[in-house]
Amino acid sequence: MTTPLRLGIAGLGTVGVGIVRIVQKHAALLELRAGRAVEIVAVSARSKTKDRGVDLSGYAWEDDPVTLAKRADIDVFIEVMGGHEGPAKDAAEAAIANGKDVVSANKALLAIHGQALAEAAEAAGHLIRFEAAVAGGIPVVKALTEGLAGNEITRVMGVMNGSCNYILTRMEDAGLSYEAVFDEANALGYLEADPELDVGGIDAAHKLALLASIAFGTQVDFDAVELEGIGSVTIDDIHQAADMGYKIKLLGVAQMTGRGLEQRMSPCLVPDTSPLGQLAGGTNMIVLEGDAVSQIVLRGPGAGEGPTASAIMGDVMDIARGLRISTFGQPAKTLRKARAARAAVSAPYYLRMQLIDKPGALAKVAHALGEAGISIDRMRQYDHTDTTAPVLIVTHKTTRTALDEALADFKSTGVVTGDPVAIRIEAV
Amino acid sequence: MTTPLRLGIAGLGTVGVGIVRIVQKHAALLELRAGRAVEIVAVSARSKTKDRGVDLSGYAWEDDPVTLAKRADIDVFIEVMGGHEGPAKDAAEAAIANGKDVVSANKALLAIHGQALAEAAEAAGHLIRFEAAVAGGIPVVKALTEGLAGNEITRVMGVMNGSCNYILTRMEDAGLSYEAVFDEANALGYLEADPELDVGGIDAAHKLALLASIAFGTQVDFDAVELEGIGSVTIDDIHQAADMGYKIKLLGVAQMTGRGLEQRMSPCLVPDTSPLGQLAGGTNMIVLEGDAVSQIVLRGPGAGEGPTASAIMGDVMDIARGLRISTFGQPAKTLRKARAARAAVSAPYYLRMQLIDKPGALAKVAHALGEAGISIDRMRQYDHTDTTAPVLIVTHKTTRTALDEALADFKSTGVVTGDPVAIRIEAV
Repeated sequence: MTTPLRLGIAGLGTVGVGIVRIVQKHAALLELRAGRAVEIVAVSARSKTKDRGVDLSGYAWEDDPVTLAKRADIDVFIEVMGGHEGPAKDAAEAAIANGKDVVSANKALLAIHGQALAEAAEAAGHLIRFEAAVAGGIPVVKALTEGLAGNEITRVMGVMNGSCNYILTRMEDAGLSYEAVFDEANALGYLEADPELDVGGIDAAHKLALLASIAFGTQVDFDAVELEGIGSVTIDDIHQAADMGYKIKLLGVAQMTGRGLEQRMSPCLVPDTSPLGQLAGGTNMIVLEGDAVSQIVLRGPGAGEGPTASAIMGDVMDIARGLRISTFGQPAKTLRKARAARAAVSAPYYLRMQLIDKPGALAKVAHALGEAGISIDRMRQYDHTDTTAPVLIVTHKTTRTALDEALADFKSTGVVTGDPVAIRIEAV
Repeated sequence: MTTPLRLGIAGLGTVGVGIVRIVQKHAALLELRAGRAVEIVAVSARSKTKDRGVDLSGYAWEDDPVTLAKRADIDVFIEVMGGHEGPAKDAAEAAIANGKDVVSANKALLAIHGQALAEAAEAAGHLIRFEAAVAGGIPVVKALTEGLAGNEITRVMGVMNGSCNYILTRMEDAGLSYEAVFDEANALGYLEADPELDVGGIDAAHKLALLASIAFGTQVDFDAVELEGIGSVTIDDIHQAADMGYKIKLLGVAQMTGRGLEQRMSPCLVPDTSPLGQLAGGTNMIVLEGDAVSQIVLRGPGAGEGPTASAIMGDVMDIARGLRISTFGQPAKTLRKARAARAAVSAPYYLRMQLIDKPGALAKVAHALGEAGISIDRMRQYDHTDTTAPVLIVTHKTTRTALDEALADFKSTGVVTGDPVAIRIEAV
């Protein structure tokens, strides 16, 4: 193991450049820690001439990432291009077919094609590592796959999209509407080119699906994530939640139930004194629960040049040190296809709706909840307008199925105007 | 790698039994994850006949842990006896001499003899792993050594002794004196047989010294830790700190300075809105800072059967999976002897003292601070008694050396009665 580990980097955006910076700055430190040198041999990106602020003159250049992936003189193919089809996928497949280990920051690629890629890599005796794809600089894949390897994992949850947490925090701090903060965040460049990836919860759901696979030994199943973005959260909801001692977070939760694997990414109320409740701004937080360890909480930057490059280099250093571990913590071909359990785990819910202001309106709503088997913990009516009154209800524990039944019934009462808002209260 | 990994466990207290439980309960899961079976072959403890609530009949018994360590049929020697001299040390040395990998939860042993043990193990091509020795169930050694391997670490800090954090939290919540809560905690069995290991900060300092070694590539140097326990923290200090937006924590801090390695374990004021400030009760929290990742925070149970056994099994699973990594993240013989820098990093301080109630007293104290080059941020005099007045001062940034000079000068002013309290305000 005294030969250098030779890297090829496909993608020279923020993260790719961050990797180059670390390898150049810390060459001696990396060699000391790994017991062998870590060298960049070749790079690939769209524009060869763009000034990226780092010296690339010592590396071979490839216009095509697939050609880079096939080079005989690289051991590890680092994929930091992004996109779950096209060049990123082609290049990762080419790298595996050509006997390379792959390190990727590409959550979409892995959440959608991870099973096939891992099977191919493992059949060839090679690794795929993806620490950077989940929660940026937080070594959560490592914590879950290695640190907690003696545990049966019982639940994984967290705030996995910093932009959404920024928006929700900023709404509360400044008393602004969702729309106002969305525009502000977009103008500041905090959101993806397609903002729905962030605010729709898709990006976070990719990460949750990857963590669920590792946690429960199941094939990654992004399509089974119950997905709800933050677009329907109003500043009123945030204030009402605060009044009751809660914060609203876009929370991902994965847990194995008697009915199958439940994966949810949706706005939730969490106690404002909990670590998740206290998480402000663009930071990520993952909560891991296992039968031996009980609960650990990991907090850190979910994105950015340095943190993401740090995660990539953690994977690279593992490979340099000779760690050979299955992509999802156990051989890909032993991962079970999990039955998707929707709405298996019950919880209390926060409900907000507009009632037509006439006698008996509240009773009709209460009746609809009762018919669905849902009991009411507390109820509040406030801020009368001329014709409607906002009503807030906190239910006792119920299933989402029963709740959806009640919400459907609300419409037929003729006293609820518009769509009621229902936000789960998660026990963290 | 399809042969089973064979374990010998020395010590069948809480943690040893926790390991047995995991190996028995999760045999299939461990084999699936590691790609090979993980088996207990032999155990050792003081009493063979004691009922520990687990079935040990399938394992060979050794009265002497050294004999266990030498057995030809074990691959990994798990040391969960405790004590930094005597049987634990002898057995660890015997295991290394007999070609075993060692997994230990013994912070004292490693903080004092870790360098010698690691050199011996590495010379023989074997591993020592000690995740369980630092912060219980939190995989912080792994995060630092592996996850952040691409970073130059700039600072490591944290709350590393749950008992101390419990005492400080309980004092504030119940408005009780240190002595009252100490007695309560002792009666509840929360403290070590020698409570000074907890409240004197020794146990936490062992952990800090181990983390500092990994973080900065230096030989573990427990003796260089500036050590101050929580015994002088009063409920008044806690209330005053709270008034100013701070919590008092027994905080360990290690950082490399221009003058050498500074390691401190002492009560500190931290902002009550920071993750460290929000940490209540017996939980541990470690903050890791690196040049690429910026900051990650890990929180979890610092002790207990399940969490400690979880950490031990994380190490065991790494070995089962074939990870070969140096004890301190780089070869032990390459670890530098760090120069111990005391008081290199300046900070603001909180000072509390009793002044004799006569004209000019406050001016004399202010003069002594000025003479030492220390400027005052704020000052408060409160709660007059007949003859003395408690005075609280927050300084601007100063070195501990300058502060100690001022504190010594206070005595010669003739207006300060008793010993002034000085608590550092740490920027977290």
